Amino acid sequence: MANSKYEYVKSFEVEDKLMPSTWIVLRIDGRHFHQFSDKHEFKKPNDERALKLMNACAEAMFEEFPDLVFSYGVSDEYSFVFKKTTEFYNRRSSKIVSITVSFFTSVYVMKWKDFFPDKDLKSIPSFDARTVCYPSTKIVRDYLAWRQVDCHINNQYNTCFWKLIESGKTKSEAQDRLKGTQTQDKNEILFQLGVNYSDLPAIFRKGSCVFKDKVEEIVKYNENGQPVKRSRNKVITDHCDIIGDEFWKEHASILKDE
Amino acid sequence: MANSKYEYVKSFEVEDKLMPSTWIVLRIDGRHFHQFSDKHEFKKPNDERALKLMNACAEAMFEEFPDLVFSYGVSDEYSFVFKKTTEFYNRRSSKIVSITVSFFTSVYVMKWKDFFPDKDLKSIPSFDARTVCYPSTKIVRDYLAWRQVDCHINNQYNTCFWKLIESGKTKSEAQDRLKGTQTQDKNEILFQLGVNYSDLPAIFRKGSCVFKDKVEEIVKYNENGQPVKRSRNKVITDHCDIIGDEFWKEHASILKDE
Amino acid sequence: MANSKYEYVKSFEVEDKLMPSTWIVLRIDGRHFHQFSDKHEFKKPNDERALKLMNACAEAMFEEFPDLVFSYGVSDEYSFVFKKTTEFYNRRSSKIVSITVSFFTSVYVMKWKDFFPDKDLKSIPSFDARTVCYPSTKIVRDYLAWRQVDCHINNQYNTCFWKLIESGKTKSEAQDRLKGTQTQDKNEILFQLGVNYSDLPAIFRKGSCVFKDKVEEIVKYNENGQPVKRSRNKVITDHCDIIGDEFWKEHASILKDE
Amino acid sequence: MANSKYEYVKSFEVEDKLMPSTWIVLRIDGRHFHQFSDKHEFKKPNDERALKLMNACAEAMFEEFPDLVFSYGVSDEYSFVFKKTTEFYNRRSSKIVSITVSFFTSVYVMKWKDFFPDKDLKSIPSFDARTVCYPSTKIVRDYLAWRQVDCHINNQYNTCFWKLIESGKTKSEAQDRLKGTQTQDKNEILFQLGVNYSDLPAIFRKGSCVFKDKVEEIVKYNENGQPVKRSRNKVITDHCDIIGDEFWKEHASILKDE
Repeated sequence: MANSKYEYVKSFEVEDKLMPSTWIVLRIDGRHFHQFSDKHEFKKPNDERALKLMNACAEAMFEEFPDLVFSYGVSDEYSFVFKKTTEFYNRRSSKIVSITVSFFTSVYVMKWKDFFPDKDLKSIPSFDARTVCYPSTKIVRDYLAWRQVDCHINNQYNTCFWKLIESGKTKSEAQDRLKGTQTQDKNEILFQLGVNYSDLPAIFRKGSCVFKDKVEEIVKYNENGQPVKRSRNKVITDHCDIIGDEFWKEHASILKDE
Repeated sequence: MANSKYEYVKSFEVEDKLMPSTWIVLRIDGRHFHQFSDKHEFKKPNDERALKLMNACAEAMFEEFPDLVFSYGVSDEYSFVFKKTTEFYNRRSSKIVSITVSFFTSVYVMKWKDFFPDKDLKSIPSFDARTVCYPSTKIVRDYLAWRQVDCHINNQYNTCFWKLIESGKTKSEAQDRLKGTQTQDKNEILFQLGVNYSDLPAIFRKGSCVFKDKVEEIVKYNENGQPVKRSRNKVITDHCDIIGDEFWKEHASILKDE
Repeated sequence: MANSKYEYVKSFEVEDKLMPSTWIVLRIDGRHFHQFSDKHEFKKPNDERALKLMNACAEAMFEEFPDLVFSYGVSDEYSFVFKKTTEFYNRRSSKIVSITVSFFTSVYVMKWKDFFPDKDLKSIPSFDARTVCYPSTKIVRDYLAWRQVDCHINNQYNTCFWKLIESGKTKSEAQDRLKGTQTQDKNEILFQLGVNYSDLPAIFRKGSCVFKDKVEEIVKYNENGQPVKRSRNKVITDHCDIIGDEFWKEHASILKDE
Repeated sequence: MANSKYEYVKSFEVEDKLMPSTWIVLRIDGRHFHQFSDKHEFKKPNDERALKLMNACAEAMFEEFPDLVFSYGVSDEYSFVFKKTTEFYNRRSSKIVSITVSFFTSVYVMKWKDFFPDKDLKSIPSFDARTVCYPSTKIVRDYLAWRQVDCHINNQYNTCFWKLIESGKTKSEAQDRLKGTQTQDKNEILFQLGVNYSDLPAIFRKGSCVFKDKVEEIVKYNENGQPVKRSRNKVITDHCDIIGDEFWKEHASILKDE
């Protein structure tokens, strides 16, 4: 019973190779996470444990997929940048999208108890994902800036909103109060409610960056008692500004053009 | 801090809508499952618990995604057929691929302990996935036949191989013995080793079909003691032949053209 | 001086194979033909010579590309249907689009003088083209019906418009008169202006169909003086209804499913 | 008779937008030009009139399509580079491919008699075309170098071949003589046949570049008899080296990154 008679069905498969020499950005987003966070009583406006679980998933991605160079996460989304020259699964988009989102999801479920030891999973978490290619470093940086600006806008709004609720407002009163307000107005509201926005934890204000960086480590001491160092790639999690130039100057190797 | 300055990065997103009025087939495949099954000591050539876990994932898919009409699984792969007219995520391929494989993976990890109560997960399971569109019912059926023929070919080979190992052969001796053999030869080998191939469990020989079907159920008894029936869609798991016409005649509504 | 150093640039080429087993429809449209027809003083609302030149191009297409089965033209556009199983240029969309539109254009320029012996080409005619795939015969027929309905709507409007102009109205008066009118109203207007719409030439009302059909031809007379017939494929140009079933029943082989 | 019932067929059209911020290269190739050149008795190995007709078509392209920045032609092919930021037809590939190849073909037929006043067109010339995107200036330059190296390799081979034929060899003797030869060997053969390769016209050895460049022109003389100059974009045809850096340094504005 040879199978050749039916093999023609393979001819319907479509090639979906991403353009060579471009930065592949993968974005993973929680599906129906509004419900999911309600069901698991995530803290509002930010649940630190939930964010740290997302970061742990991102870190696991860096251990698994060596061509990742940078990632940025906020709320229930995470963006991963593959190096420009990656030949990961021959740059086939479906392969990249499916394998990474599947791996990320697996880690999310497996590590759940590490972050929520007191809570069982009450529904099935899932994520969507997509790839986008960017032809230049400048545009990748603009992409990442776009996500971090979004983080700021949403976090400032949500912080205000939940502080207003805490102060006794109803949801619709809080929405009305915030309608049409600018950054400055929101800072003012927060100030009146006793919050200095810049004192909030950086993980809430800036989101999370997970990336690989060269670090010098002392591997042993020689006979003279002097440290012997070796430089190695280490996965780092940080909550810093990635809109300005400073971070990128200090970590020039991350988006280097090769 | 409006975000409009960076929003241009969205213009790099690519539309990946699948052709309307075609059958969307999604295939999910275990990634590195050779290693994964070794690490978790899956029985050779077939591990019934592992197969039933896959089936449980497929059944959960049918509960979650109402536009699925049929699925077929064998070994560490599962193919799902969406109805021709589905507008699931607007037929965007990345969305469909990522959400389904993520959901499938989540269920796989969450239900692991139901099927392997004595084993912990020792590595992170992940799957890849892709979509293929087929313009006609005939070609979808050929696709499914292709997978079931593959199941047969692989299972017959593997059954022989592991029976030869069991009988004391080394792996390379078993390979040599099977080189160039046809279906008939393999049945002969099995017979000599005391195995009647057709007596093997259908789940090994035929793979698994999960699909929705109309069933009549007794919902209550009326005052005269007579049963009141209602027809409802029920998710069914079976291990039947899907190459011939019989199954499709009996379940004509599954691939009906609308 | 080997060329291998630069050959990597080929890896940026993108596969654009159209789905197998679907009907490929190619639509060619005049580019800037409003200006082009003004410059060459095409008659309004229809220039029979211009239409016949388009038809001659379509006929030449059928001589050149054997996998064409049907085409429909109206005004400065022409739609061509390739048979479902065509392997023309391996179904690569750019190849199909470019070669056909280039050939069509070449014929348009070369045959110009046959249809406009009294006019020189005063500007450079060009066309755009695209491919669309349809998975079923029903949808191809709906596509063709869509174009013929469009022909009817436009032709009825334009006939009214130019008759009103002829009767002394200005362009804006004619537009105002027609605003919001239905088919019935336009027939009424035409009737008042002495035109019975159904008496207009079919080429204006129905557009043009060019297709291949089997015809019986007398190839010689045998010794008894009796005709010896042979059936052969002949390219036919007609102006018939392709919305209803009649034409398709009479020419069942054109869109047969194979 | 509204047309909405059939308009759903438009939903089968596929978006084919090319990636923003990349260089779009369009390549046009003669279809069946081997036959075409035989039929019209083009001179071997190069027909200067045929090449100049191709160049005239390229020049017309620059007059018609303002976003072209450079083009390179050899034999019956021509590559056109659109500027990186072009929004020509919204970067839709089919539109770009079809409109340009149609225009090119139109010019080819219309100008034929200017270059071959003594020859009628005996068959219908046609061209294929495709687009490829390149994310960086370096890769566009490598693309162009690839074409010019190809020009050199082919021209050197063909020049040898036809000189050997001229000297009395048969076609297969000439092929045998050239089998396995390197650049140096071919120069030697040419030398023995009395040809100094570098004395051949540059149009044969280097191909043709058509591009826009800023030139200073005297537009009038003022009352003092002194020339008044204005800088304007002029379409230039040249036959220069585009592999090395010199040309690109001298014309830095052509591929500037903006």
